[in-house]
Amino acid sequence: MRRWNGWGDDSVTYPLPPLAAALLEARIGPASPPRDATPSEALAAVSPPRPLSHPLVKSDAVERLRHARGQSFPDWVALRTARIPAFPDGVAYPFTEADVAELIRFASQVGARLIPYGGGTSVVGHINPLPGDDRPTLTVDLSRMNRLLRLDDVSRLATFAAGVAGPDLEAQLRARGYTLGHFPQSFEYSTLGGWIATRSSGQESLGFGRIEDLFAGGRLLSPAGLLELPPFPASAAGPDLRHLVLGSEGRLGILTEATVRVTPLADSEPLTVHALFFPDWKAAQAAVRQIAQARLPISLVRLSTPTETETTLALAGHRRLIAALERMLALRKVGEGKCLLLLGCRGRSRASKAACREALAIAEREGGVSVGRAFGKRWAKARFRTPYLRNTLWEMGYGVDTLETAVVWKDVAGAVDAIEAALHAALAPFGERVHVFSHLSHVYPSGCSIYTTLIFRLATDPEETLARWQAMKTAASQAIVAVGGTISHQHGVGVDHAAYLPAEKGELGMALLRDAARRLDPAGLMNPGKLLR
Amino acid sequence: MRRWNGWGDDSVTYPLPPLAAALLEARIGPASPPRDATPSEALAAVSPPRPLSHPLVKSDAVERLRHARGQSFPDWVALRTARIPAFPDGVAYPFTEADVAELIRFASQVGARLIPYGGGTSVVGHINPLPGDDRPTLTVDLSRMNRLLRLDDVSRLATFAAGVAGPDLEAQLRARGYTLGHFPQSFEYSTLGGWIATRSSGQESLGFGRIEDLFAGGRLLSPAGLLELPPFPASAAGPDLRHLVLGSEGRLGILTEATVRVTPLADSEPLTVHALFFPDWKAAQAAVRQIAQARLPISLVRLSTPTETETTLALAGHRRLIAALERMLALRKVGEGKCLLLLGCRGRSRASKAACREALAIAEREGGVSVGRAFGKRWAKARFRTPYLRNTLWEMGYGVDTLETAVVWKDVAGAVDAIEAALHAALAPFGERVHVFSHLSHVYPSGCSIYTTLIFRLATDPEETLARWQAMKTAASQAIVAVGGTISHQHGVGVDHAAYLPAEKGELGMALLRDAARRLDPAGLMNPGKLLR
Repeated sequence: MRRWNGWGDDSVTYPLPPLAAALLEARIGPASPPRDATPSEALAAVSPPRPLSHPLVKSDAVERLRHARGQSFPDWVALRTARIPAFPDGVAYPFTEADVAELIRFASQVGARLIPYGGGTSVVGHINPLPGDDRPTLTVDLSRMNRLLRLDDVSRLATFAAGVAGPDLEAQLRARGYTLGHFPQSFEYSTLGGWIATRSSGQESLGFGRIEDLFAGGRLLSPAGLLELPPFPASAAGPDLRHLVLGSEGRLGILTEATVRVTPLADSEPLTVHALFFPDWKAAQAAVRQIAQARLPISLVRLSTPTETETTLALAGHRRLIAALERMLALRKVGEGKCLLLLGCRGRSRASKAACREALAIAEREGGVSVGRAFGKRWAKARFRTPYLRNTLWEMGYGVDTLETAVVWKDVAGAVDAIEAALHAALAPFGERVHVFSHLSHVYPSGCSIYTTLIFRLATDPEETLARWQAMKTAASQAIVAVGGTISHQHGVGVDHAAYLPAEKGELGMALLRDAARRLDPAGLMNPGKLLR
Repeated sequence: MRRWNGWGDDSVTYPLPPLAAALLEARIGPASPPRDATPSEALAAVSPPRPLSHPLVKSDAVERLRHARGQSFPDWVALRTARIPAFPDGVAYPFTEADVAELIRFASQVGARLIPYGGGTSVVGHINPLPGDDRPTLTVDLSRMNRLLRLDDVSRLATFAAGVAGPDLEAQLRARGYTLGHFPQSFEYSTLGGWIATRSSGQESLGFGRIEDLFAGGRLLSPAGLLELPPFPASAAGPDLRHLVLGSEGRLGILTEATVRVTPLADSEPLTVHALFFPDWKAAQAAVRQIAQARLPISLVRLSTPTETETTLALAGHRRLIAALERMLALRKVGEGKCLLLLGCRGRSRASKAACREALAIAEREGGVSVGRAFGKRWAKARFRTPYLRNTLWEMGYGVDTLETAVVWKDVAGAVDAIEAALHAALAPFGERVHVFSHLSHVYPSGCSIYTTLIFRLATDPEETLARWQAMKTAASQAIVAVGGTISHQHGVGVDHAAYLPAEKGELGMALLRDAARRLDPAGLMNPGKLLR
């Protein structure tokens, strides 16, 4: 059963290894567990719904609570304290595109807001009803629209109902010998439509491409009608409207079908993840940049800062194995300040293998010491487990959040420093410390993403906890804008980043986006408050 | 000196080899040269300008004639007969972004139309003044805005003033050790800004990427103000406005600066082009699809139909060498109906070489017979010369045009047949024949482009010539729409394809594009009649 107030399946726990607990305590101090609201307290706090009378719409408290919030830090505080300012007034589970059309018609008729809901994994507030909205809110949960509708084997194009979640999508493709290869950390719950609407990026975007590269076309139902995007392999016929739907975050309509470019399993297996350690952060960055700029068809590059490396090793648990690893690395002059690089390669073809060898050769030339594949295997196996640590840490009294950007290579080192420094400085006035670490995980010839994790102590008073988080979130976002980064590389805009969007789109850019929303949704029903404020 | 009424430099001629002349005569009959208007006749026919009084604006007849038409078939007929229905009333050559801003201000003030002009190589009417327009037209020739403004070596990003033409751009990059690698057939004249505004595709798009992949960001000056596109390596912060500027065809403003992703020469040289012959078209298509779907980092794939192969060999000239080649191929059971495949590879790295070998291995497995590199070398050397044949053929009495689309692999074979059949059928009622041949030249995992050349006899009466062309253009465009292709893979929309755009964008899609034009150009000054009618 899915956790109602945290991450993932409630039968899965991820206990914190003692080494990691000790590290955290040394860095930011001991914590004490907060008191979480019980499910019955939360259900009792669900406000009565405004009527949305339609055979497809449910309005019981459980559904409304379960669709009230996503996975952002403020979402967690709201759920764990049962202080939720707004609920959807109804939840519908359409089975077909006709159902979606009917729900849009109904909402237009009664003036209800519509929130498209995929897996509910947004970390920036994408699926939250607008507090204080004078109109009722209908959340459209697309999870029943989950079938592979067509597979064109020749063109390698698969068309899915857009509510399909990661594992279900991969299972249906696997049965036909294909994979999409889109593996964001939220993979187990997030959906194809959600990936497209938020411009998601999978862990192996280097090999398979970002969702922009995978999304060939589809059908967007808007209050103004259908926008159909044909799956051309390429086109010079004017602006590409796929790129307006990508990242539209539910403001333009509901994606009912999506056609994606798929890869035969035979071409993409196995995944092998090599681990290397670098003596210092600077050399490691240079290696990663060279690998990206060599445009080698490998699958994954993930480089951790020294602090993230230390944290990762502590999380790996085995004190003796790690000590042995560190002795071995010390012989190769890799010690304090070392950085972990994961290099993922796929495929058995000679070209794939040559690319992988070349990436390893570049890394070793820049001082990387290879420690084989065991570490990487462990990472690949646990790749979707990490978010479960949020539950564990919260229950110990620690809050966790992540934030991310992308910048050009010239600015990477400075941006990591600026973002991390901003986080430290923002928490200092509270008399608290934050454990901050980063990695570079999506690399391109011109730059890369920076993904930063922050862990800090929860206060007894949730308002105080939120104030700490808000101070850090604001400081980091301002730092990102100041270094010329995008406000999001993979999480999207939602509510939490909306204030920073004009800095990169400009006044005219924002006007263009508002015009598009007005054209497809003249009455302003679609997902209010997200992306565009 | 640039030809005023044809392609290229007037000191360059490309005589038609006798073999090719014989082939053409056998296929469509002998032709007789038309009488072209002389430059003085053409100048005498330039209508008096409407006043556009500004220090930056020239309005002499030579400038106005030289900027009146591009390189489409109707453009040629207009120029060669000196029957040009509309001229720009003035031509300006801005040197700086401030000049462009001043010209936009001036045009807004006096209510003049603005046509951004790059190299004037459009084959679909992008730069033609609107006949019968009630407002004066100011053509803004951006050729003086041609400098490399910044080079970020670390991020491999080069920022140019957007009027820079292909050879000048490559020369400036070459001096710094880089290449862009964007080589459309119009390369010698077309400009960076033009490539972006029309979603151009270079011959080596497989290796370097289409212009969409190369264009990282830039500055668009519109009548409503500046739209700045930051060069993020990737972003999930809402819809990507670069994809609105790409393909905007001058309707949204004038691109003054563009930042592009560049590649070190050292990584991309040398270019080696292998030639192979296949016994039949079906096997050849299967090979090309497999190569595309293997996602090998090679540079170029170009597969000719049997008729294009025959024509290419005839154009190559050497009767004895070709006979020897054909005897050799016959021993390998490659004869009548053979298809030529060119495979281009770049770079010396082990990974590049492995990719190239793998592509060759796929081609050979599917029945391709390799004939080495001499043929490909010849092709690469002459890659920008082919358009000169248009001059030769016209002067012999033959008209040439090309058209193109992209479709998913499943539909490729059917689309080639349908387009070619439509062309033949369209000309039959005129009692004329057309020589038609095609190639697949831009390949993607999900499909490819189809590029079709048509050669037919000019009539004595230019109206009759235009009627023949129009019948074929309409039939081919309708065939493209009917097979589910895009109306353009690389030429853009302009005037000639505008009627077919709604078929792929849909009613709402067209409304979104019109809204964008209205937002950036509320008074409707920018490039009227193109893209959006």
